[in-house]
Amino acid sequence: MGIDPGMALIGYGVIDIENGEAHLSASGSIRTEKDKSVPARLAEIMDDIKELMNIYKPDSVSIEDLFFFKNQKTIIPVAQSRGVILAVVEKLEIPIYEYTPMQVKQVLTGYGRATKKEVESMVQLSLKNQTLPKLDDTVDAIAIAITHARMINKI
Amino acid sequence: MGIDPGMALIGYGVIDIENGEAHLSASGSIRTEKDKSVPARLAEIMDDIKELMNIYKPDSVSIEDLFFFKNQKTIIPVAQSRGVILAVVEKLEIPIYEYTPMQVKQVLTGYGRATKKEVESMVQLSLKNQTLPKLDDTVDAIAIAITHARMINKI
Repeated sequence: MGIDPGMALIGYGVIDIENGEAHLSASGSIRTEKDKSVPARLAEIMDDIKELMNIYKPDSVSIEDLFFFKNQKTIIPVAQSRGVILAVVEKLEIPIYEYTPMQVKQVLTGYGRATKKEVESMVQLSLKNQTLPKLDDTVDAIAIAITHARMINKI
Repeated sequence: MGIDPGMALIGYGVIDIENGEAHLSASGSIRTEKDKSVPARLAEIMDDIKELMNIYKPDSVSIEDLFFFKNQKTIIPVAQSRGVILAVVEKLEIPIYEYTPMQVKQVLTGYGRATKKEVESMVQLSLKNQTLPKLDDTVDAIAIAITHARMINKI
């Protein structure tokens, strides 16, 4: 499972690997409402991530690494949400792998500064003719899952 | 209870209010080891915060608010830890209050740019002759607890 962390929106994508090929088995997002308090939204994220893990029982979770120079305005809420995700997944003893956006781009397209469009094309290519979800954050989550599958030489 | 969030060290201080006076009933810290993985440390923080809440059953938790321009290097780990703390406390339905370091200084000393020493003196004064813990982070946690007690006009 790949996870794109966030506060209002957390994307996830589950891929299955069979005979060296990736298949998208599920994808979607967790959303929290902006008019709720920050602790209430984080508690919701805690519950929802637990539920996702119980439903999909992933072999591993790959998640985007954060850097402080990226999106300074949203870095604190995203990091708070990411902390909750990491703690919940770790407690369930599911191995966690972290990849920077640059690593994802490098692994998928061979170029660390690839555009969103180029990454999306490579995700589409990896999944052959399967229909991709429309949401950017979900595609990012699938991209991280595929990155991990490549890193461990499964596809 | 006041909490000073962090990754390697989380300070906490519990005060009781009786007849408009604050008494320090407990204080200490949660520590995580630097050689463990980030998810492992966050899972530990999740467990330890739950345990603290179960032991002290605070009426409310006051915690330091974060700003991205403060300590840019450590902002991501601290925010990740803070996210875990907020989610756990919220799940236990304990009310959460957030104060900036400037608010704490303002409330305790009347001056938003007071030094650490000045804040410490005011914490000492609020607690009369009780012995303060030596650790800075623990004193900061007690300071946040006292700030909240003042804000709700209990002392």
